[in-house]
Amino acid sequence: MFERIPTIRRAMTAIGIAGLLALTTVLPAAAATNPLASWNDGATKQAVISFVEKVTDTASKDFVPTEKRIAVFDNDGTLWVEQPMYAQVAFALDRVKALAPDHPEWQKDSALKAAIEGDTTTLLASGYDGILELMAVTHAGMTTAEFEGTVTDWIAKAEHPRFKRKYTELVYQPMIELLDYLRTNGFSTYIVSGGGVAFMRPWTQKAYGIPPPNVVGSSLKTRFEIIDGEPQLMRLPELGFINDDGGKPEGINLHIGRRPIAAFGNSDGDMQMLQWTTAGDGPRLGAIVHHTDAAREYAYDRKSSVGALDKALDAAPANGWIVIDMKKDWKSIFPL
Amino acid sequence: MFERIPTIRRAMTAIGIAGLLALTTVLPAAAATNPLASWNDGATKQAVISFVEKVTDTASKDFVPTEKRIAVFDNDGTLWVEQPMYAQVAFALDRVKALAPDHPEWQKDSALKAAIEGDTTTLLASGYDGILELMAVTHAGMTTAEFEGTVTDWIAKAEHPRFKRKYTELVYQPMIELLDYLRTNGFSTYIVSGGGVAFMRPWTQKAYGIPPPNVVGSSLKTRFEIIDGEPQLMRLPELGFINDDGGKPEGINLHIGRRPIAAFGNSDGDMQMLQWTTAGDGPRLGAIVHHTDAAREYAYDRKSSVGALDKALDAAPANGWIVIDMKKDWKSIFPL
Repeated sequence: MFERIPTIRRAMTAIGIAGLLALTTVLPAAAATNPLASWNDGATKQAVISFVEKVTDTASKDFVPTEKRIAVFDNDGTLWVEQPMYAQVAFALDRVKALAPDHPEWQKDSALKAAIEGDTTTLLASGYDGILELMAVTHAGMTTAEFEGTVTDWIAKAEHPRFKRKYTELVYQPMIELLDYLRTNGFSTYIVSGGGVAFMRPWTQKAYGIPPPNVVGSSLKTRFEIIDGEPQLMRLPELGFINDDGGKPEGINLHIGRRPIAAFGNSDGDMQMLQWTTAGDGPRLGAIVHHTDAAREYAYDRKSSVGALDKALDAAPANGWIVIDMKKDWKSIFPL
Repeated sequence: MFERIPTIRRAMTAIGIAGLLALTTVLPAAAATNPLASWNDGATKQAVISFVEKVTDTASKDFVPTEKRIAVFDNDGTLWVEQPMYAQVAFALDRVKALAPDHPEWQKDSALKAAIEGDTTTLLASGYDGILELMAVTHAGMTTAEFEGTVTDWIAKAEHPRFKRKYTELVYQPMIELLDYLRTNGFSTYIVSGGGVAFMRPWTQKAYGIPPPNVVGSSLKTRFEIIDGEPQLMRLPELGFINDDGGKPEGINLHIGRRPIAAFGNSDGDMQMLQWTTAGDGPRLGAIVHHTDAAREYAYDRKSSVGALDKALDAAPANGWIVIDMKKDWKSIFPL
């Protein structure tokens, strides 16, 4: 549909109806003057633009029809800040504290007790089981509607400990511009995150222009029930799907059903998604956001306890994956 | 976006540029003369049209913005024929026969032996385990790409035993028109089927105009592997998700993340999807396709071994669900 709109515009111009052109502002700006304004000029920005130009050029052998222009993005550390801890973990810690007065029995559980007291060292030492316990009591045992309300309230108020801004203000401005640029060029943009799908959907449309159906993530099982005559979906304390590592291509296949042609990640958990995306036939773009800017954001990679980037960084050159150097490639990090 | 296009058309007409109107044929025909041509006039057709008109009327208290105009459709028996057996079962029986020469060991398994011989009575008598065994050997143990190729080949050739036509020619013409009518009016249309998502996605775009990401169904687990240097997704003989009964609203929530405002089904397996859809606030449409036409298709409901409609039929009046009477409401059943 939209490919033909420029034809209409040209036709209107040709027959000299200048006044009518004002009406076309409702149409997408396919050639905005500077779509990646917060990216410094250089090889990285040019590689992204070259890729988009060739897949959208009907005269190119690399042309890709719009229905196959699928771009997938990790969330934590790729679209927004993930240090010093994932926003969803901050949410869980806030929730366990808020709910603790009604649950004196949690004091007998060492992991929950540590979480309530904000003692993340002891919590982390409790390992996978402790974290699962924390997630179970804060993310399950309510309806999907109740959980959505809780997330919506939290995200509207919670502040990042270092930047003292809301988490949705700590999205990366260059990536917001990239998402817009791709969509303007006929791409569908999806989030493919290890984070919980129900934690992300309440705010991704506003923050990224990505609607709920385009969010793929980890999930708990739910159970349909009629409660007081009302159909409800109850969130169960049982993992449904873990959308990380090999789970990312599995989740993409399950949810989207088509192999993306572009993938953006920042950690080893994104490596299989990058492999799956860039191994397909035809033009492919794989990119890694490398956190190199301790002054404006954070600098971390191989040894980070959050978002470690090690194997994927080593694998980048041989696979032709772009490594985005935040310090060098981005003019600004967050929206003003 | 599209809501504003009529404004452009009106503006162009007003300023008298008749020649330009020809160009607008690329725009969606929001008011096609007879969008539901294969539906007989009457209460059923009128109820569907009234619903669509009120949710798209910006002046109505029942107006619904496009992003929330989500309509979900069961597949077997709602969009295409499901008698005398689900197309996917016919596929499995064809596949087990085709693969049998390479698997002499299957002769020792009574369910598989029955399937190979086309003895569906013995196969069904083997119960759930026998059917699962059949599905495992025909639907798992290959890559997702291989399975897609097999389905694509099969659907292009296989014929329905009674109608001697391809299955994709046995879609219901009135429902195809309904899907088009809803999309023209800004709806997103989704399939929400108990059938396998990987079995449906290769052909739903062509048959229904529904692309792979809008297909929700049952699934096997997959596993990401690097085989001979190539990333692959292997289909495992292990159920991932059963998208039927209560699984339908669960699948909708997992996949779409928004509650639909319209749902179409034909069997008791669709009842929870209808409940979930129509219990939401604001205008809602629930509808059941009732198979009443033995001459042109099939007549079955409460006691059918395929697509039984019993509890949902009883629940329809109290819930305000429309019951579509195929014999009475549809001028034609299949495309010509």
